[in-house]
Amino acid sequence: MTESVVVIGGGAAGASAASRAKKLKPSAEVILIEATDMITHGPCAIPYYVGGIVKGKTQLVTYTPDVFERERGIKVYINSVAREIDVDKKVVFVERNGKSVEVKWDKLVIATGAIPSIPRVPGTNLKNVYTIRHPAYADKLLEDLSKALNVAIVGGSYIGLEMAEALLRIGKKVLLIEMESQLLPKALDKELAEIVAKEVLARGAELHLSEYLEEIVGSDRVKAVATNKDTYNVDAVILATGVKPNVDIAARAGIKLGITRAIDVNEYMETSGEGIYAAGDVAEKVHRVTGKRAWIPLAPSANKEGQVAGANAVSGRVLRFPGVVGTAVTKFFELYIARTGLSEREAVENGFRVESIVIRSRTKAHYYPNHSEAVIKMITESSTGRIIGAQVVGWEETVAMYIDIIAVAIERGMTIEDLFFSDLGYHPAVAPVWHPLIVAARVLSKGRF
Amino acid sequence: MTESVVVIGGGAAGASAASRAKKLKPSAEVILIEATDMITHGPCAIPYYVGGIVKGKTQLVTYTPDVFERERGIKVYINSVAREIDVDKKVVFVERNGKSVEVKWDKLVIATGAIPSIPRVPGTNLKNVYTIRHPAYADKLLEDLSKALNVAIVGGSYIGLEMAEALLRIGKKVLLIEMESQLLPKALDKELAEIVAKEVLARGAELHLSEYLEEIVGSDRVKAVATNKDTYNVDAVILATGVKPNVDIAARAGIKLGITRAIDVNEYMETSGEGIYAAGDVAEKVHRVTGKRAWIPLAPSANKEGQVAGANAVSGRVLRFPGVVGTAVTKFFELYIARTGLSEREAVENGFRVESIVIRSRTKAHYYPNHSEAVIKMITESSTGRIIGAQVVGWEETVAMYIDIIAVAIERGMTIEDLFFSDLGYHPAVAPVWHPLIVAARVLSKGRF
Repeated sequence: MTESVVVIGGGAAGASAASRAKKLKPSAEVILIEATDMITHGPCAIPYYVGGIVKGKTQLVTYTPDVFERERGIKVYINSVAREIDVDKKVVFVERNGKSVEVKWDKLVIATGAIPSIPRVPGTNLKNVYTIRHPAYADKLLEDLSKALNVAIVGGSYIGLEMAEALLRIGKKVLLIEMESQLLPKALDKELAEIVAKEVLARGAELHLSEYLEEIVGSDRVKAVATNKDTYNVDAVILATGVKPNVDIAARAGIKLGITRAIDVNEYMETSGEGIYAAGDVAEKVHRVTGKRAWIPLAPSANKEGQVAGANAVSGRVLRFPGVVGTAVTKFFELYIARTGLSEREAVENGFRVESIVIRSRTKAHYYPNHSEAVIKMITESSTGRIIGAQVVGWEETVAMYIDIIAVAIERGMTIEDLFFSDLGYHPAVAPVWHPLIVAARVLSKGRF
Repeated sequence: MTESVVVIGGGAAGASAASRAKKLKPSAEVILIEATDMITHGPCAIPYYVGGIVKGKTQLVTYTPDVFERERGIKVYINSVAREIDVDKKVVFVERNGKSVEVKWDKLVIATGAIPSIPRVPGTNLKNVYTIRHPAYADKLLEDLSKALNVAIVGGSYIGLEMAEALLRIGKKVLLIEMESQLLPKALDKELAEIVAKEVLARGAELHLSEYLEEIVGSDRVKAVATNKDTYNVDAVILATGVKPNVDIAARAGIKLGITRAIDVNEYMETSGEGIYAAGDVAEKVHRVTGKRAWIPLAPSANKEGQVAGANAVSGRVLRFPGVVGTAVTKFFELYIARTGLSEREAVENGFRVESIVIRSRTKAHYYPNHSEAVIKMITESSTGRIIGAQVVGWEETVAMYIDIIAVAIERGMTIEDLFFSDLGYHPAVAPVWHPLIVAARVLSKGRF
């Protein structure tokens, strides 16, 4: 009998899982169920679509459902909402064309992604209140925002910052509200967040830190946002107040959730349900620095988790997902922002005794024109000198690449001495002879090297 | 009694060694002996000085001797040529102001660098035949070359290529001659070298591969270069035919040379002579992939070796230099070229059974504007999947940074599977969601992941 692999969710993880399963077992029937009319979509492009950098909605996906079906031999059910999973009968109930359809599976991959966290305050259901969640809604978002003059963005993390840039680019007045006392509170420590804040102000946004939303004021349409400090007249609101794993269907089916409230999976991406895998933003991950469970919903790991789930679904336990170290990159206009590992705050919360340093370094040889400054924070475990985190901001794309070096260094347990002696490349147009990361390692050694 | 540390050579390694020794032992008398009037110099800037990218000769050094003396408390003897080392009496005979001076040392660091290898053909002593060796000669070089119309560059490795760019930038006709059948024969394998060759032609240089110099023709001044294939009229010649360790003074003192004919040092940078260290281009290194001795003269390791030698000279065996993996970066106009580890050719010569792959990948998300293509070659050991080398070329500076990730991966013994699951950063403006290196690892897995 033909084995049937059903994947719920056509984003990064789901599409990867489906592709992998079909590739490894061409005889299997692989079905990809997607609620919208787009697959292989990611929300990462939306700010650039709104900001006019990316033109054309077709750009927002890697494959259309047609091409995906034809080229990969996967059945794609678009506009199909998975409603319930019956783990005993091994079926998913899917709402398609107004009807409920039973889709049978031998192996199931849950890749339902993440959904926006909506603050529990009055007015979030008004017109002109938006979340950034899926390219399928990007056109409507763009059209509506084009008409707005004053936009409040609630939340100063990745999406909030990227949307701030987008709206400034299309000439809107932007009010950015963040409840913590700094931007990117989960990503950066204060020193680097302050550089980002300066840039936000320099680009003309209004920035309100340590302010939280109390109400979105209006009847039908938004008129203002009220925070714990003041009320601001705006005609649109973007809620960039974080996301949460979209676990409803899994939870209702009795599939175990982890301490982060994402689906509990082992390194094979197996859930507690027999023959049921989870991958991507809906699944919990292991943080390779702490060894603890973490929920860090990002596309690169989603793709790999999908790859692992899809492979293991058809071939048994052939691949293991080792977890993540928390690498993330964003930018605000020309300021590149990247981080990996633990921030100092996270490290302390996780019981590490740490040393940390912030350095400023040229990005190229002192004599080479057009260099700029990279600001690097590096965090090590005091007792071992092991690198456990780093953050970088700078005005060149190359500084974002530094973080990849540190990601690998963290994964491999490198100490600052290992990094100091690492054979990093040098050319006057590309890096100073003492690479900025090596300078950071050296400063952390307190004179030892 | 005051301990005396004498360092011969004011380049990267020497200046680092002197600085480190003085820093760790401020009571020591540290003397830096330099044959020219410049210290903390490197030849890397010369092509950019000639090409007009770097303006002003003062840009070519990090410190002037005065500042170095004043800020670091090191005695700097410029225009001072170390002639002989007496290992028993522990003195260096230095020619200064026309006199021979005895400089006593308790610890000696030899950092005499590298000198150009001159082909043994007639005519290399003619006027208008140049080597690229020291910023002290950069003004003369620039002045002379400005008057030339047709310049032959002999040697298509880093310096040859960088000088080709420089001369094209100032409007010269350039004839680039390389005896091997490809450019950068020690750095790149053929596939990537061909991309460089295409760019060289596209920028208007004449390129002659598989041709070797037989004679530089002329009387007094250069008139032509004769190769095994033809004779070409030129009015200047640059010999970029490699460098060799400047070991004469060390060898005469009986200090042991290694199999590469550079000074044999252990991981503490100790030579065979008691109390005598060597660092930088004059010293042999351990290649961390092969475990064998290698001679790879580059500034970043020179600096670190100097650091180790200087520290150990005053503090005993406090630091160890672990060796290099052969990372190097260059560029030709807007084409960035980087490599690390072993090339496929080197790997095979060293007895490895290898797998290799060349991939082309976008540098950013497909929808993000202004992306370009990176071409990556990756080489692994067949039996283990361990990464042992990589090469990258591409039209963005960021691609050069990929090589640092691989350098660290090689140092830490990572396999392609480790790399595939590495948590590299993603942002549509900075990298595709499947990072080019992860794609390379994946292709090398032949369907395993």
